[in-house]
Amino acid sequence: MNYQTILEEIYEQIQPELTKGKVASYIPALKQVDSDDFAMSIHLLDGTSYNIGSYNKKFSIQSISKVFTFSMALELYSTKLYKRVWHEPSGNPFNSLIQLEYEKGIPRNPFINAGAIVTTDTLLSYYKTKEKAFEAINNFINKLCKEDITYNKEIFDSELKHGFRNQALASLMKSFNNIKNPIENTLDTYFKQCSLMMNCEQLAKSMLYLANHGEDPDTKEIYINSSRAKRVNSLMLTCGHYDASGDFAFHVGLPGKSGVGGGIVAVVPKKMSICVYSPRLNAKGNSHAGTKALELFTSKTKLSIF
Amino acid sequence: MNYQTILEEIYEQIQPELTKGKVASYIPALKQVDSDDFAMSIHLLDGTSYNIGSYNKKFSIQSISKVFTFSMALELYSTKLYKRVWHEPSGNPFNSLIQLEYEKGIPRNPFINAGAIVTTDTLLSYYKTKEKAFEAINNFINKLCKEDITYNKEIFDSELKHGFRNQALASLMKSFNNIKNPIENTLDTYFKQCSLMMNCEQLAKSMLYLANHGEDPDTKEIYINSSRAKRVNSLMLTCGHYDASGDFAFHVGLPGKSGVGGGIVAVVPKKMSICVYSPRLNAKGNSHAGTKALELFTSKTKLSIF
Amino acid sequence: MNYQTILEEIYEQIQPELTKGKVASYIPALKQVDSDDFAMSIHLLDGTSYNIGSYNKKFSIQSISKVFTFSMALELYSTKLYKRVWHEPSGNPFNSLIQLEYEKGIPRNPFINAGAIVTTDTLLSYYKTKEKAFEAINNFINKLCKEDITYNKEIFDSELKHGFRNQALASLMKSFNNIKNPIENTLDTYFKQCSLMMNCEQLAKSMLYLANHGEDPDTKEIYINSSRAKRVNSLMLTCGHYDASGDFAFHVGLPGKSGVGGGIVAVVPKKMSICVYSPRLNAKGNSHAGTKALELFTSKTKLSIF
Amino acid sequence: MNYQTILEEIYEQIQPELTKGKVASYIPALKQVDSDDFAMSIHLLDGTSYNIGSYNKKFSIQSISKVFTFSMALELYSTKLYKRVWHEPSGNPFNSLIQLEYEKGIPRNPFINAGAIVTTDTLLSYYKTKEKAFEAINNFINKLCKEDITYNKEIFDSELKHGFRNQALASLMKSFNNIKNPIENTLDTYFKQCSLMMNCEQLAKSMLYLANHGEDPDTKEIYINSSRAKRVNSLMLTCGHYDASGDFAFHVGLPGKSGVGGGIVAVVPKKMSICVYSPRLNAKGNSHAGTKALELFTSKTKLSIF
Repeated sequence: MNYQTILEEIYEQIQPELTKGKVASYIPALKQVDSDDFAMSIHLLDGTSYNIGSYNKKFSIQSISKVFTFSMALELYSTKLYKRVWHEPSGNPFNSLIQLEYEKGIPRNPFINAGAIVTTDTLLSYYKTKEKAFEAINNFINKLCKEDITYNKEIFDSELKHGFRNQALASLMKSFNNIKNPIENTLDTYFKQCSLMMNCEQLAKSMLYLANHGEDPDTKEIYINSSRAKRVNSLMLTCGHYDASGDFAFHVGLPGKSGVGGGIVAVVPKKMSICVYSPRLNAKGNSHAGTKALELFTSKTKLSIF
Repeated sequence: MNYQTILEEIYEQIQPELTKGKVASYIPALKQVDSDDFAMSIHLLDGTSYNIGSYNKKFSIQSISKVFTFSMALELYSTKLYKRVWHEPSGNPFNSLIQLEYEKGIPRNPFINAGAIVTTDTLLSYYKTKEKAFEAINNFINKLCKEDITYNKEIFDSELKHGFRNQALASLMKSFNNIKNPIENTLDTYFKQCSLMMNCEQLAKSMLYLANHGEDPDTKEIYINSSRAKRVNSLMLTCGHYDASGDFAFHVGLPGKSGVGGGIVAVVPKKMSICVYSPRLNAKGNSHAGTKALELFTSKTKLSIF
Repeated sequence: MNYQTILEEIYEQIQPELTKGKVASYIPALKQVDSDDFAMSIHLLDGTSYNIGSYNKKFSIQSISKVFTFSMALELYSTKLYKRVWHEPSGNPFNSLIQLEYEKGIPRNPFINAGAIVTTDTLLSYYKTKEKAFEAINNFINKLCKEDITYNKEIFDSELKHGFRNQALASLMKSFNNIKNPIENTLDTYFKQCSLMMNCEQLAKSMLYLANHGEDPDTKEIYINSSRAKRVNSLMLTCGHYDASGDFAFHVGLPGKSGVGGGIVAVVPKKMSICVYSPRLNAKGNSHAGTKALELFTSKTKLSIF
Repeated sequence: MNYQTILEEIYEQIQPELTKGKVASYIPALKQVDSDDFAMSIHLLDGTSYNIGSYNKKFSIQSISKVFTFSMALELYSTKLYKRVWHEPSGNPFNSLIQLEYEKGIPRNPFINAGAIVTTDTLLSYYKTKEKAFEAINNFINKLCKEDITYNKEIFDSELKHGFRNQALASLMKSFNNIKNPIENTLDTYFKQCSLMMNCEQLAKSMLYLANHGEDPDTKEIYINSSRAKRVNSLMLTCGHYDASGDFAFHVGLPGKSGVGGGIVAVVPKKMSICVYSPRLNAKGNSHAGTKALELFTSKTKLSIF
């Protein structure tokens, strides 16, 4: 299949979609982007890659970081992790406290905010300090994408200043004893991982281990074991797009994870990893054009897992 | 009516109830009480008063403080206060975040924790600093009971240390912009008012203004205007005992407010104010023997408002 | 106090309110009313009565019937009734299935639809057939108001035809075994009691027993015992206006019960019973002008129970 | 791969699991099964098949029927169907009315009861009578499995008699105008489809079209178009096991649908279809040993889609 041609077709067809949706605005720092931007990158297991658009432009990875921290925590804690964060779709329209209260502080899955905060809290417990925990997360992603990435201090400060909803989630879980470290340390690390800046090419490359049963296809380093890599993929499919996860599975048919920064990563098991970027979001908080582009991609390539 | 005889009858009849229920234990400091204790005090508008049991023993007034702060805030802000805290029963089994999330950070009433935290936040805005706000609350109650009361530092520290649920409530409301001051200042003041120590006699006396259309029957000082006094009483009736408010109205038939410290205050409009104390709580978090004693009282005296 | 003068003042002051709100339209038959109508009636324990407006015009009593059936069921089953219907405010914005599902088919109180359906079901069990059950309800009200009243067949048919929400409530409770008779029989009786037609004067008179500790002040017949009469009054105060009950207590300060037909009954314990009628409803489903008129009434007369 | 050997291994390893869990007992007729039974069947696209255990024993297919009716309705109505039933995981612990009420009668997906009832209602609208609708469903499945199947009248009668929860769901949706036919007709058809009796071999064969992009691999008849077949598979993955769907995806990694009769069907896209049967259910209402057997199957064969 000629993937470059496919990317070019998508690029052309996606143009009318680039002005639809709205850039995330809950923190001022996130608004400072070129709102009609678009990029898409593909990395195959054999090392070849294809790119289109502004694939070198960095953006805030936001919730995509949850895939990396969950991979790390699953490798460290294995099934013990399930006692603190479950792996079931939440079914809720937003990052809600409601279910969390009924379910006594155990978040439904690691890809909603509450679950990602718990996941980060487990890393903090392992690495002892917030500095070391964040360093470990940063290093893990550096290794995956083979480049040095950093977080955006302005976005981080902004998250910290406006993060009352996440504070509420953390406090509620702390009241159920499901946050083990001081809330401010856990949230500090969590907001930093969300503020990491990566471009489309880096993100696609960094997801390649999930297309390759946990192993780096280049260095052969095993990041997580084969069965855990499948679990991460299944979680992306069932829970990767909040309460639009079913819709994404329905229309795209690939495990994927979105971030409010406008990025979406996806995996074709045993074949390739993908990243799209377009900062305007649909009503459910996922990149509008990004979702459409992935839908076009699986239509054209017949690479849906279904 | 011979109230002293009635109190003596109640005292005798209540004995078998004094070993039922459980002392509040969510913070260690609250557990250090004589768990089978009982006291009851009545203050009439004419200045006479009747007491039985350990009516001089001080206990933590906890949620009873919400009546005082709501009175203060209602007098300061009048109907503007309703934009930030409503006056409807919540119907929820505990101090829940669920309704608060659905209703966008506006608590149902000032007698659930979320509503009381907002109320205190309005006082903080008015008095500028947490020190002055607490001083104002303390002074208001001192004037009501004609004695100097103080808060218990151990209980306050304990509340502060274990107050994650209240932090979650405050953070959630802050995310909806319904907390105007820094969360830590608002919660500091709130936990202090909850840690105030009063005895049964003082509490009964301090509620007399609500039996007397807002006016001190002794000094004739008007604490709140007549129509607001009625509003506070109606709120105690519909919302004074969390999700057992209907049951309290059903069986006791008086406006009342309970605290997890074991106290319950009640008002017979135009006649008297009452306080009972017994630290063991029923399943709904209200004093078990206290509720029963008030039920006996209205049965014997026919003073139910219905 | 000159009640006739007070009614005349209210009548004048209420005029600007008569065009606000909307007539109930969920069934076509209910819409056929003079939408700007107003009436008010007062009955004192001494037998005197005062009326204003179209107090002789009959309207559908709807949920006001719940007060009568609950009185009957409480007298028949006493505290056993509480196992099937509780007496706590529901806190919910409409006649919701949500709480009913969480609370396993036990309605919060007899004044929400679910609770009233259970109450009617208990009468059906007692009187064996739906004909006899409805006859008993009709006779009970006939005795109270000293006149023969009947139900409106067109409204009844309309309720039956559009009553899917009530069918859902009944089916859900049946699945929890809290409806003992065939659903269609219970709903037939329930819809008939809601379709009873009464005028303002009759309704005011029929509530007099609740102002007089359960006894008919005229015939001295005891309809329900004294303590149960207080329970019914307390329930009207805490639950009589759905999720506007707190607001009604706050502003009117009397036990009361509204119906979507536009009527509201209220009780001043030991003094009088009241009925107002005005078919336009506020957002919560209670008569807009009726609520305002009662607020004016307690402001003028200082008869609030608080 | 030697599938027969794999089935034999699974059969041996699954023995200790066959006494765990509980047979569905909400209707008496469902209890009359050999509770420790086990069967498993595989059908490959090339026509070969493998079986083990009591693969010829018929059982009630229950919710597995939802896959067939949804396929039919999707083919008839295409995307118009989404206006009446969505395709998102519900996240709810049981077949709940709560979400349905908040979401105004539009069920989350066609594999929860509410959604399946709506789906059947659309078939009823298309085929005009309940007899013809059920005949069409029955014929569709007959064609898929190449045998004549029938429903069990005793189970059907039992469902009808105890189906109050489903009546509540249907009534609630009717109140939102999302049921277009008389409730009794829709439920009659729905309960009949649930009472269809099939054995493991028939069920596996009948699912083969979903492994083959909607086409019968034998007759080449196209039952649903290719993109719709993928949608059905994605729905089975995200919503096929109620609120254990995430867990099934996590551990098994195949699109699948369970029924309370003890059956589970699953699909390996482009390869094969599978059915397991074991009547004891886990806490979430899915076959305990069936789930474990499928987990063993994908572990041994590496056929997880992830």
